[in-house]
Amino acid sequence: MIYRNRIGNAYSLTSFGESHGPAMGGVIDGLPAGLPVDIDDIQRQLDRRRPGQNDLTTARHESDKVEIMSGIINGISTGAPIGFIIRNIDQRTYDYDEIAQAYRPSHADYTYDIKYRGYHDRRGGGRASARETVCRVVAGAIARQALRLPGIDIVAYTSQVHDIKLDLPYDKLDLTHIDDNAVRCPHQETAARMEHAILEAKDRGDTVGGAITCIARNVPAGLGEPVYGRLNASLAAAVMSINAAKGVEFGLGFGFVDKRGSEVLDHFTLKNGKTGTTTNYSGGIQGGISNGEDIVLRVAFKPVATLMRDIATISRDGSPTTLHPRGRHDACVVPRAVPVVEAMVAITLLDHYLQQRQQLAFNGLV
Amino acid sequence: MIYRNRIGNAYSLTSFGESHGPAMGGVIDGLPAGLPVDIDDIQRQLDRRRPGQNDLTTARHESDKVEIMSGIINGISTGAPIGFIIRNIDQRTYDYDEIAQAYRPSHADYTYDIKYRGYHDRRGGGRASARETVCRVVAGAIARQALRLPGIDIVAYTSQVHDIKLDLPYDKLDLTHIDDNAVRCPHQETAARMEHAILEAKDRGDTVGGAITCIARNVPAGLGEPVYGRLNASLAAAVMSINAAKGVEFGLGFGFVDKRGSEVLDHFTLKNGKTGTTTNYSGGIQGGISNGEDIVLRVAFKPVATLMRDIATISRDGSPTTLHPRGRHDACVVPRAVPVVEAMVAITLLDHYLQQRQQLAFNGLV
Amino acid sequence: MIYRNRIGNAYSLTSFGESHGPAMGGVIDGLPAGLPVDIDDIQRQLDRRRPGQNDLTTARHESDKVEIMSGIINGISTGAPIGFIIRNIDQRTYDYDEIAQAYRPSHADYTYDIKYRGYHDRRGGGRASARETVCRVVAGAIARQALRLPGIDIVAYTSQVHDIKLDLPYDKLDLTHIDDNAVRCPHQETAARMEHAILEAKDRGDTVGGAITCIARNVPAGLGEPVYGRLNASLAAAVMSINAAKGVEFGLGFGFVDKRGSEVLDHFTLKNGKTGTTTNYSGGIQGGISNGEDIVLRVAFKPVATLMRDIATISRDGSPTTLHPRGRHDACVVPRAVPVVEAMVAITLLDHYLQQRQQLAFNGLV
Amino acid sequence: MIYRNRIGNAYSLTSFGESHGPAMGGVIDGLPAGLPVDIDDIQRQLDRRRPGQNDLTTARHESDKVEIMSGIINGISTGAPIGFIIRNIDQRTYDYDEIAQAYRPSHADYTYDIKYRGYHDRRGGGRASARETVCRVVAGAIARQALRLPGIDIVAYTSQVHDIKLDLPYDKLDLTHIDDNAVRCPHQETAARMEHAILEAKDRGDTVGGAITCIARNVPAGLGEPVYGRLNASLAAAVMSINAAKGVEFGLGFGFVDKRGSEVLDHFTLKNGKTGTTTNYSGGIQGGISNGEDIVLRVAFKPVATLMRDIATISRDGSPTTLHPRGRHDACVVPRAVPVVEAMVAITLLDHYLQQRQQLAFNGLV
Repeated sequence: MIYRNRIGNAYSLTSFGESHGPAMGGVIDGLPAGLPVDIDDIQRQLDRRRPGQNDLTTARHESDKVEIMSGIINGISTGAPIGFIIRNIDQRTYDYDEIAQAYRPSHADYTYDIKYRGYHDRRGGGRASARETVCRVVAGAIARQALRLPGIDIVAYTSQVHDIKLDLPYDKLDLTHIDDNAVRCPHQETAARMEHAILEAKDRGDTVGGAITCIARNVPAGLGEPVYGRLNASLAAAVMSINAAKGVEFGLGFGFVDKRGSEVLDHFTLKNGKTGTTTNYSGGIQGGISNGEDIVLRVAFKPVATLMRDIATISRDGSPTTLHPRGRHDACVVPRAVPVVEAMVAITLLDHYLQQRQQLAFNGLV
Repeated sequence: MIYRNRIGNAYSLTSFGESHGPAMGGVIDGLPAGLPVDIDDIQRQLDRRRPGQNDLTTARHESDKVEIMSGIINGISTGAPIGFIIRNIDQRTYDYDEIAQAYRPSHADYTYDIKYRGYHDRRGGGRASARETVCRVVAGAIARQALRLPGIDIVAYTSQVHDIKLDLPYDKLDLTHIDDNAVRCPHQETAARMEHAILEAKDRGDTVGGAITCIARNVPAGLGEPVYGRLNASLAAAVMSINAAKGVEFGLGFGFVDKRGSEVLDHFTLKNGKTGTTTNYSGGIQGGISNGEDIVLRVAFKPVATLMRDIATISRDGSPTTLHPRGRHDACVVPRAVPVVEAMVAITLLDHYLQQRQQLAFNGLV
Repeated sequence: MIYRNRIGNAYSLTSFGESHGPAMGGVIDGLPAGLPVDIDDIQRQLDRRRPGQNDLTTARHESDKVEIMSGIINGISTGAPIGFIIRNIDQRTYDYDEIAQAYRPSHADYTYDIKYRGYHDRRGGGRASARETVCRVVAGAIARQALRLPGIDIVAYTSQVHDIKLDLPYDKLDLTHIDDNAVRCPHQETAARMEHAILEAKDRGDTVGGAITCIARNVPAGLGEPVYGRLNASLAAAVMSINAAKGVEFGLGFGFVDKRGSEVLDHFTLKNGKTGTTTNYSGGIQGGISNGEDIVLRVAFKPVATLMRDIATISRDGSPTTLHPRGRHDACVVPRAVPVVEAMVAITLLDHYLQQRQQLAFNGLV
Repeated sequence: MIYRNRIGNAYSLTSFGESHGPAMGGVIDGLPAGLPVDIDDIQRQLDRRRPGQNDLTTARHESDKVEIMSGIINGISTGAPIGFIIRNIDQRTYDYDEIAQAYRPSHADYTYDIKYRGYHDRRGGGRASARETVCRVVAGAIARQALRLPGIDIVAYTSQVHDIKLDLPYDKLDLTHIDDNAVRCPHQETAARMEHAILEAKDRGDTVGGAITCIARNVPAGLGEPVYGRLNASLAAAVMSINAAKGVEFGLGFGFVDKRGSEVLDHFTLKNGKTGTTTNYSGGIQGGISNGEDIVLRVAFKPVATLMRDIATISRDGSPTTLHPRGRHDACVVPRAVPVVEAMVAITLLDHYLQQRQQLAFNGLV
């Protein structure tokens, strides 16, 4: 299936909204009835994604208050679809007049123009704006709450900003301190250096790339659908649909390329009487199916393409022009993308979890 | 949607078959009526994937003859689904008796055992076997033929084996000479070193990882579906569903992470009066939509987990045991995975191409 | 695919909302960019479905104002998903306290209670309420506008109420006068008798069944997907998903059962040089594909189950009880279901139309 | 979703094959692992559908032997997709030369010609041939076996042939004697009259219509997905995709149209301590969800369009011509369609059953 504005099957999100329209929103379908849904927690996740949180992020102020329209009564899911909207408040359209005529390099201006033949909403990037990710955060927050019932826990953090790389593996880090700093890196000293790198780029009107590592713990073995719905395939699609994501890897990932098989086998062992592995090079997925170890993935983000500098480009009519960006943009997308990666992983895992329960359920095994 | 044994929507493949059953096969749906289909070309692609081609690959001999059951008459597509089978001939089940009881490390034995509660076909890896990729090659070969009609061309090659990396960019290589050597690397000298690395590993009963680069040329701008069906998201899912794939990146990919925005913007220019970019760091995709430049992606493969050495592991009942592998396995999966990567990219591009044509068609624009 | 809260693929509606929640709404996806969308026309269709229009319908007053959130700018579609909400205003929850405990016969109270284990919204029927059809009318109105571009026209009317049957075939009727009366029957004299039948039932606290005939004219030959997506199969699913629909037939429908083949062949002829048929027993569909003749279908509706009388039933705990209905309900659902049938037929036809254009587009035939 | 050659989601069939190609076949996906599958029973169902069983059916002889290619080992499902083929043996292509040029009235010749622009397989109706239903019978037989595990039982029978109508309700009939006669009517005396009606039509080179009633017993309450995946909507699509089906109704169906609500309420009662209804006008479905009563539906079939008489028609080029049918065709499709209706109902119910189990499973309720 080619997803368009829907992601997921057993648990799905269908989203709508452009950054400068009246509201973003969507429909979440497939949440089983009878589950507690904590609206405050959804709002907390939205606040983590929200611009204007601190010096690092754009000054655009959006309250990003979610309004739930259906599907939840008194904090309990009803089994009906959950409709929601998030109003767009601070829309300074004037910031974007210029780009209505000129193509910003490495943005979606040109490709949307071709695809939608000029009819798309160009204000603020319209549908291509990363503002759309607010909808993912809502669906992701609800998915994470549901996954917590069987004990599954998802956490992501900034593992690299420009050339500042957090070299410690995640199991040597205290992942409860990710939000203690503005870049969302659990190692405070490294976080300070990352923050400095971003601010330095910002001062120069430049931007920097980065990477996010995401860990899903306590995922039961058996999630993932052979052969095209392998868990890594679904997760890859989910995170690669995030704005500015340009690569994804699982476990050792690209680090496997120059290895010998004898160096990177995950040998089996018994852990408290349960089958496990002594290492986790595979990142918790074998043959496309979770094996009960932590799922580990890493996503590469390109530097934001909107520089606060004059940029030479061409207009829709092909004539040379210069952009003078004045809008409000992050110098590094990664800190705010952390909750979005968590959301996409949560949506995908819940989708697979529900799918797998169905198979077990038939045989009365759940 | 969670894919299970189907991939694609407008153009789709639904596959079946285990490596030691009577046949592999599938149903290809969505090929428009009236297109020429060259069965010999399908067979050539199957031969490229076939084991036993040379010293590098497993000695297992399979003729891999495709039998088309429907959907094509006199070399022309009818618009009906194309059913096909490929018989499994050389099945030495005895090779696999051992693994019926013990879990091979870094294989799917354990995860399939959990998922299917012991009922899956364990012979030769069953459904988890890379033999399933023959079905993909059939659907991919047909997709490539269809894509060639509007001039789209897909080619993949081995760009790294263990620590032997082909450093030249693809546009400095002669991509018509990929099949001139057993590893499918277009640079013959590098190919020789890669071949040596594989044979050396094979001699030691070891295996090595590698990477494949895939290029799609002459893809029209406008393919890809915002927001969850971004072209990179679909392509990522497609290639990450290949056995042993552990990472994927587009354009500069993970190379974006330590870059500044000012270094990696793809500036617009006019090329023969058409909008293009002076560089292609983005790998032909902006905002999830093709921009008319070459699509460039790279897939990381882990070393094959089947070493020709004694391997300590545990049995299904948890007791320690030792595997003495005797089967026929590649020391490096990458050379034979080249046509599979091409197939998955072709299936995905045709799916998106058909989807996009639909939108244009409504307005009488095609 | 089991549809849940989504219908359609190339053109789709995903809806949400319960009758007594804050709002109904949905996401419409797949409308090609660049089409005119007339919001006033959407509102007119909503007004046709709205309760409180006249004596025949429930006194519940809802303004049913649609708020478009995205996807349309200055009356032109952008290609982005169209999000919309319709607020619920007149919610007299007290009317429904009683049914929170007792199962109304022939309603969804019991089945929803089982399916959602008591967690569903019971107020006003919640998700099972026919109020959900407002969302269909929005998506249907937009689909009808799009279909009008290639000249396709959809119209439905009340063809039977209780034992008052309109015996004239549709081509002997003036279908421009359907809305001239409250029952939406184009034959004014019959309409008056139908109206009387409904009012008489209402006076007795009773309800009556009825039937709706729907005609789609100027549908091009070639719509419908062999073999499971036959046009009649899709249309049947679409209209059978309407509340209270219990049967559907195409062309002569159940009238075929006692016929001989020699009596009901639709013989071919040339009409203005174009292939057509002299009769249309088939209702415009042959082999599951439209043949260019008018598509004709008829839907049977059961009498509304909510009688304005005391009704003996049982409670959720199994104890006998009596319902004393006080709510506002139609004595015959059919007049207000007319725009809903039109909507479902329009959504389905546009879905198939887009699908078919895709196939033609590949070959440059559109 | 527009189904094309796939039906079902949690349990699905993707079919291929034309009547005069080498084989029919398909892929069945979603059967949980570990279920017994009785191949002999599949073959028995195929034999019930097979032509040449007796005087009533076409003399075309096909052994219709199913070859299972995957997914079943030693009579137990593995959880992998089940690939199968059924070879076409008795293909007298010469019978069909004539129709390659002329459109048979009320057949799919013209609509397929338009849809596939002349590239479709015209021999024997090609993909439009009812021979495709062999694939449905395979998938249906397996679904029925799976449904029998939780006790669900599906049975269909011929309830009308031309003007011979079986007036007794199904619960007054002995449904174990359906196959005792060639028409598959459980009332032997009526069966004899139906048989006579068919033979009489056959003698005259004519054909007759008919109806099939299908009952699903012991279906648990709770199957069906609000709001577009109502159980009656899915079932309607499934049976309306059968060749020659022109109408479907549930419970009282079109009989509801002229009823008052007070006459047809299904009042609740306790049956052995369980909630049930005293009558079953609704046919086991309320609000689109099964209520635990028998599911009852009726399908109308048009008379076969192939008369054994000269038939005036037009050619593909528009010129008048006369058809002289010589092929082998049933004079009434209904007796052989009985196992096909059962199959489509079984596929749909298993799909919904698996879907519903998933929701219960999350809460540990199964």
